[in-house]
Amino acid sequence: MILAFDIGGTRGRCGVSTADGQLLSVIGLERDGDDGARWLARLMEAGRSLYAAHPGAKAIGVSFGGPVSNDGRILSMHVSGWESINLVQELQSAFGLPVSIENDANAGALGEHRYGAGRGARYLAYLTVSTGIGGGVILDDRLYRGAHGMAAEFGHLVMHPGPNAPVYAASKPGALEALASGPAIAREANRLRVAAGLPEIEGLTARDVFDAADGKEKWAREALQTGIGHLARGVAAVLSAYDLERVVIGGGVSFAGDALFTPLCAAVKEYLPHFLEERLDLQPAALGDNSALLGAVVAALDRPS
Amino acid sequence: MILAFDIGGTRGRCGVSTADGQLLSVIGLERDGDDGARWLARLMEAGRSLYAAHPGAKAIGVSFGGPVSNDGRILSMHVSGWESINLVQELQSAFGLPVSIENDANAGALGEHRYGAGRGARYLAYLTVSTGIGGGVILDDRLYRGAHGMAAEFGHLVMHPGPNAPVYAASKPGALEALASGPAIAREANRLRVAAGLPEIEGLTARDVFDAADGKEKWAREALQTGIGHLARGVAAVLSAYDLERVVIGGGVSFAGDALFTPLCAAVKEYLPHFLEERLDLQPAALGDNSALLGAVVAALDRPS
Repeated sequence: MILAFDIGGTRGRCGVSTADGQLLSVIGLERDGDDGARWLARLMEAGRSLYAAHPGAKAIGVSFGGPVSNDGRILSMHVSGWESINLVQELQSAFGLPVSIENDANAGALGEHRYGAGRGARYLAYLTVSTGIGGGVILDDRLYRGAHGMAAEFGHLVMHPGPNAPVYAASKPGALEALASGPAIAREANRLRVAAGLPEIEGLTARDVFDAADGKEKWAREALQTGIGHLARGVAAVLSAYDLERVVIGGGVSFAGDALFTPLCAAVKEYLPHFLEERLDLQPAALGDNSALLGAVVAALDRPS
Repeated sequence: MILAFDIGGTRGRCGVSTADGQLLSVIGLERDGDDGARWLARLMEAGRSLYAAHPGAKAIGVSFGGPVSNDGRILSMHVSGWESINLVQELQSAFGLPVSIENDANAGALGEHRYGAGRGARYLAYLTVSTGIGGGVILDDRLYRGAHGMAAEFGHLVMHPGPNAPVYAASKPGALEALASGPAIAREANRLRVAAGLPEIEGLTARDVFDAADGKEKWAREALQTGIGHLARGVAAVLSAYDLERVVIGGGVSFAGDALFTPLCAAVKEYLPHFLEERLDLQPAALGDNSALLGAVVAALDRPS
């Protein structure tokens, strides 16, 4: 059994899983206004309660919502307030168990590859499309991390540069996550509403845009077409660069199901080289909110001894 | 010693090399109007004459100007007239030596990695920019072929789609090789000449455009800026996807030297994620016309026994 954490800046999950990916128990946490120390303490507390209930856990796996180096160090404090925390050491000394850590998108790739929509594919990319866009790649059945642990940061692919290119967080102007993430789709939808003389909708989400497109609203359909077109070009670039067997897409936006995947498949084919077109295999993630948590389980199981 | 062939549709090279990449003898051939059978016979003849002079050759390596499957089969007859030829078997039976074959861009990557500008880099991409654009990737000191032997076909990355996107050969509209290859740069230069009321120049090459830009011609400078901008975005996409230590650029266009590499480096940084910007290491190929021929040597040396 493995004790697993999926830790982000605003949300966390802690679970106990068997080696074949059965989650025996999961605790979900919202950070609310907690400072870094309190957030860590609450995650530890959740872990302790699960460990007490399942003392057979032999290792800890962590999915972390930020970059992680090839030797397991956290490289950037996406979780504000953790600048001085060594997460791996904190967990090791608290539980007395070996700790493995992966970036959350890499963990998502590991989870879907072992237990989810990526099973059976030796060459696989996983993209998570939500507030930002992250990615992970499995080559020859193993996680590929790159020279500096920074491989597969697909949200940073610059798809559409230029003077009016949109910007998201730390990405360069015109990066994929500024064009095809949930907030990017909502922003484009509001822009099209205003252009059509309609009022902007505050708090509009990608899910709202999918609903409105289903109701045949022109602004929503066009915003989706644009966002999905950019995402398709990103997926095609990943496939052209890596020559993979399958691409799995998770994250909040993937929950739109066929309304996303049917037009996305068609658009990816438009941008793929002919010799890869007929091989296209694009799947929605199968593990829902648990892709990264179960990837943390894989990271712990596959820890080199 | 290795007997090596670099075989394209219009040109071929045959050489004998030591294991440390010293070419003892090289024969260059132009196909002229030869049909497929005659072209093969002339290549064989060149190989036989080199083998007679260097009977110590123990294996044959081939760089082929077209796709090659992971098990060494030629997948597409880029060399017209070779539809019914099994190149590996022909060479094996003619010379009685084991034969290894690689796609020419993969061979270029192998050659530059072992003997040229890629030495010391464990994670490397090689791009060849000439009539088309090809690529090869070394991950953890080994050639990465992808799931179907089609990895690193960077010329097919669609960078700029749309109703007026240019097309090159079998690529999709707006593919990198339709925007940043030698002929693409020349075509854009002529388009800008015509737009400026100047006559089109027949037979214009990328080299002519570099010369004219050096002479401060506006149409030439703008055409280069456009082509180099697209190439930069392609290189940045490759680096973002793979997280590499170095990128080596070869092929005809790379012979422009600093006139290419200085603006290219600046533009790649513009499109790279911040965390990769300071690590950018972009180098011109060091083996000139012999990158792929020496890569064929590596393919033969590294043949699994």
